[in-house]
Amino acid sequence: MNERELAERIKEISVAEFFEKNRHLLGYENPTRALLTVVKEACENSLDAAEEAGILPELRVKLEQVGEDRFKVIVEDNGPGVPASKLPQAFAKFLVGSKFYRYRQSRGIQGLGISGALLYSQLTTNQPARIVSSLGRRDPIHEFELMIDVTKNEPVVLSHRRRPNPDGWHGVRVELVVEGRYVDKVFQSVPEYLRQTAIVNPFASLRFQGPNGHSVEYPRSIKELPPVPKEIKPHPHGVEVGLLGRMLKRTGARTLLGFLISEFCRMGRTSALEACRTAKLNPNQPPQKLSAEEISRLHRALQQLKLKAPPLDCLSPLGERMIEEGLRRLFKAEKYVAVSRSPSVYRGNPFQVECGIAYGGEIGEFQLLRFANRVPLLYHQGDCALTLAVKEVDWKRYGVPHDGFPQAPMVIMLHFVSVWVPFTTEGKQAIACYPEIVRETKLALQEAGRRLFEYISRKERLRRARARIGLFERYIPELAESLEKLTGKPKEEIIERLKGMLDEEG
Amino acid sequence: MNERELAERIKEISVAEFFEKNRHLLGYENPTRALLTVVKEACENSLDAAEEAGILPELRVKLEQVGEDRFKVIVEDNGPGVPASKLPQAFAKFLVGSKFYRYRQSRGIQGLGISGALLYSQLTTNQPARIVSSLGRRDPIHEFELMIDVTKNEPVVLSHRRRPNPDGWHGVRVELVVEGRYVDKVFQSVPEYLRQTAIVNPFASLRFQGPNGHSVEYPRSIKELPPVPKEIKPHPHGVEVGLLGRMLKRTGARTLLGFLISEFCRMGRTSALEACRTAKLNPNQPPQKLSAEEISRLHRALQQLKLKAPPLDCLSPLGERMIEEGLRRLFKAEKYVAVSRSPSVYRGNPFQVECGIAYGGEIGEFQLLRFANRVPLLYHQGDCALTLAVKEVDWKRYGVPHDGFPQAPMVIMLHFVSVWVPFTTEGKQAIACYPEIVRETKLALQEAGRRLFEYISRKERLRRARARIGLFERYIPELAESLEKLTGKPKEEIIERLKGMLDEEG
Repeated sequence: MNERELAERIKEISVAEFFEKNRHLLGYENPTRALLTVVKEACENSLDAAEEAGILPELRVKLEQVGEDRFKVIVEDNGPGVPASKLPQAFAKFLVGSKFYRYRQSRGIQGLGISGALLYSQLTTNQPARIVSSLGRRDPIHEFELMIDVTKNEPVVLSHRRRPNPDGWHGVRVELVVEGRYVDKVFQSVPEYLRQTAIVNPFASLRFQGPNGHSVEYPRSIKELPPVPKEIKPHPHGVEVGLLGRMLKRTGARTLLGFLISEFCRMGRTSALEACRTAKLNPNQPPQKLSAEEISRLHRALQQLKLKAPPLDCLSPLGERMIEEGLRRLFKAEKYVAVSRSPSVYRGNPFQVECGIAYGGEIGEFQLLRFANRVPLLYHQGDCALTLAVKEVDWKRYGVPHDGFPQAPMVIMLHFVSVWVPFTTEGKQAIACYPEIVRETKLALQEAGRRLFEYISRKERLRRARARIGLFERYIPELAESLEKLTGKPKEEIIERLKGMLDEEG
Repeated sequence: MNERELAERIKEISVAEFFEKNRHLLGYENPTRALLTVVKEACENSLDAAEEAGILPELRVKLEQVGEDRFKVIVEDNGPGVPASKLPQAFAKFLVGSKFYRYRQSRGIQGLGISGALLYSQLTTNQPARIVSSLGRRDPIHEFELMIDVTKNEPVVLSHRRRPNPDGWHGVRVELVVEGRYVDKVFQSVPEYLRQTAIVNPFASLRFQGPNGHSVEYPRSIKELPPVPKEIKPHPHGVEVGLLGRMLKRTGARTLLGFLISEFCRMGRTSALEACRTAKLNPNQPPQKLSAEEISRLHRALQQLKLKAPPLDCLSPLGERMIEEGLRRLFKAEKYVAVSRSPSVYRGNPFQVECGIAYGGEIGEFQLLRFANRVPLLYHQGDCALTLAVKEVDWKRYGVPHDGFPQAPMVIMLHFVSVWVPFTTEGKQAIACYPEIVRETKLALQEAGRRLFEYISRKERLRRARARIGLFERYIPELAESLEKLTGKPKEEIIERLKGMLDEEG
C-alpha cells in the first residue's frame, strides 16, 4: 500500500453512523428491549421538560400494533414544548441537548436518547418520525416529519406544517413506527416500566394504552411538584487538571482570582487567595495565559484546599416517607423500612442514596428494584454499583440468610440521585462501580438492615415467648393440682392466678 | 422561560466532550484499568497495522513510573506507519479511523480507542502526546506533539518536527503520560494482558519493560503471518431496511439490478432478478429513486431469497492446533481439547467460535479466558455472551459438577472472531448477548465437553478396573491355594496364570 492509499483509508465516521452500527449500546439489541427503550426515552424527556417548567406532568403513552413485529409508539406530554427553530436538531441529531452542560439532577443528560429512538425507527421501518409541538398561546401547533441523515448526523425535515392553536395547547407529541415485540406481566416490559415510573414520580399523571386493549391509568397521588433542583457550579475537588486547563482558556474572567470565585462553587475570596498563594501564582494575572506547569500547580493547590462539600439543593431525593409509600403501593408486606442517606460526593458530583425494604407478608422471592434520578432501571442488574452493594452487605448480621443476594421474602428498593449519573452504557441501565457510590449504598443498606433486624428480632422474641407460654399453658392444670396438694389452695384459684401471670408477661 | 431562552439551552455537544464526561465508557473508570486500557489500545492498533501490511509484528511496551500515580507509557511497533498528513486526525480526533466501514476481521473498529487514550492523558496530566512515525525509505521520521481540542473534537498540533531517516525505519511510537496504578500478578493487569496477547498472536514478538525493573520477552513461535482476512460486502439477509435505503441513495450503480449485484455478497444475476420480481420492481430502473414503500418491498424480497451464507475468508480463526498449543504454554494440565466451529452468521455478519479446555494436572480452580479477534478480554466477564454460554451448558452431562460455572480443575478458553464484534461498551471488554452468538458458543462448549467426557470417563473406567484388579490381586494367593487343593496343580503355576489373565485385562 502506498502513502496515498494509506491516507485515503483514514476517514471520519459520523456519530449517527457509529450508533447505527452499535445500536445495542443505546438499548436496541433485541425487539423487546427496543420497544421499551423507545418509550423510556420519550417519557424521560417529557417528565424532565414539564418538571423544569414547573408544570405537573401529564403523560399519555400509546402502543398500536401495525404489523406482525411493528408498533406505532405515541408519547404525548403537557410540557412547555420545543421551539420550532430548534426542534429538528433536538430530535434528529445526536449529541444535541439542553442538559449535558448543567450540574443539576435530571433524567436525561447525554443528548442521545430521543435521536437514538428516531434512528432505530428509520433503520427498522424506514418511516419518518412525526413530532408535534407547540409552546402554547401565541405559538401555532407545529407538525414535523423528520428523518436523520446518518452520514452527516443532521436532521432531514420532510415536512413542517403549522396549524392554528386556539386552545393554547403546549407540549410535545412523538410518533414513531418501530420494529418491536410487546410483552407484559414480566419485569422487563413497558407496563412494568410505567408502573415503577408512577411510583417514583407520584406528582405525574400517566395513562397507558397497550396494543392488546389493555389500558391503565396512574393518577397523581401528590398535587405538588418537588422543589426544582438547583443548578450548581463544579466543585474544585472534582475537577481534573485537563478540564481545569480548558476552563481557564475559555473563561471570561479577567483575573485568576475572579476566575476561581466565579466558576466554582464553595470558593470564596479567602480560599481563592489561598489557592493562588499555595500555587505561587499572582491572583491578578489573566487566567487564559497560564502555562501547563502553572495549571498543574494550581490543580494541586485546589486539591489541598479545605472546602465545604458542594451545596445539595441540586438534588431532589424522594425522602423516606415517599419511599415507604411507594413500596406500600407495590407490595403487601409485613414490615416496611426506608432510609434516605445524607448526600455525599464522588469526583466533585453530589449524590445521594435512598433505600427501602419491604419484608414478609405476600412477598415471595427476593427482588431488587433500582432507580436513578426517578427513572426505573430494568436491565443490566448484574453490572450495577447498586447490585454490587447489595451483594457485599453481610445480611446475616441483620437476621437475613444470604447467598450473594438475601434469601428471604423481601424487596429492596434503591434510588440513586445525582447531578451526573455515571451509567455503564448509553442505554442507561446500570451505574458504574465507583467506590464512593458502592460505599454509600452499602451504608444505606446497612442502616435499613439494622431497622429491619429490630423488627425481625422482636418478632422472633415474641414467637419464642409465645411458644414458651403455649408449652406452659398445657401444663397449668397439672401444676395447679400439685400446688393444691402442697398448699391447700383450691386449684381453680391457682389456675386463674397462673393465667393472669402469663397474660401480664405476654 | 420564553422561546429564546428555551431555544438557547439546546446546544451541540462534541463527541470528545461526551467521552471526557463519560470516560468510564472507554475503560477509564479507575487508575488500574486506565493504565491497562492505554496499553491495550496502542497494542491493538500496532498489531492490526503490521498484520494488514503483511509485516510480522514486533512490539515494544514500556512503562516508566514518573510520579506517585503517574506513568509514561511507550508503545512502539514496526508497522507501515501513518502518513503525516493524516496522523493528527487519526490520533487526536474521535470517530476517525480506517476500519469502521470495512467488513473484515480486525482488532480495532470504532475509531475511538487511541483518541480515548490521548484524551485520558491530557485530562489527568495536561501533557501532550508524543507520536513518532515514518512510512520508511523516502519518508522522514515525523515527531508530533498533539493534544485534542475537546470542545471542537479536533487535533491541536503543538509541534511537528521532521528528522532524517537513514535506516528507513517504519512504524509508530506512542508516548503518553497518564495517571495510573500498576499491578502485576493479578488477572486484570498489563503483564497478564500481554501474556495472553502473545498466546493468541504467536506470529508477533512482544517485549515488555515494567516500571519495577520487571521485564519479559515473548519471542514469536511462528514465523509466518496467518492468511490476511479478506474484506467482504454486506450480506442481503443482514441489512436492515433503513440501511438498504441509504445504500440505494448513495450507490453509483445505474440500475437496480447493477446495485444488487455490485453492493452485496452472494448476489448473482439470477438472485437479483428474482428479488426484483418478488418486489414487483423494474430491474432496470435507477436505484436512487425508489420510494419508501418500494424500499420496504425490496427489503422483504431480499429477506425471502434463498442465498448462500457469506464467504468466510473474511475470518482468521486460530484453529484447533493453535488453541491447544496456547493452552499448553499457559497451563500444565492432564488433558487438552480444542474445538474450532465452522462459521455462522448473526445479522449478516460472519462469525466463528473457538473453544479450548485444559483439565486437571496443576490447574486449581475453574478459570475462563475470553478473546475476541485475537484480543484478550479481561473485564466485564459477568456481562458477556461467552460467559452466559458457559453458564447455560449442562456440565453434569460431561462428568463435570457445576454451579453456574463448572466446579472442577479446568480452564476454558473461548475465542470469538467476526467482521464485527458487538461489544457491550466502547471499552470493548464483553460481547453483547445476541442469541445466535450464545447458541454457537454453547455448541462449541458442548463439543469440547463431549471430548473431555470421553477422557474423564475412560479415566474413571480405568480407575475402577484398577481398583477391582487390586482387590483381586490381594486374594490371588488364597485362591491359588484352594485351587491347588481342588485340582492338584502347584499353586505357583496357578498364581502365574492368574496374574497373566489380569495383565491381559488391564
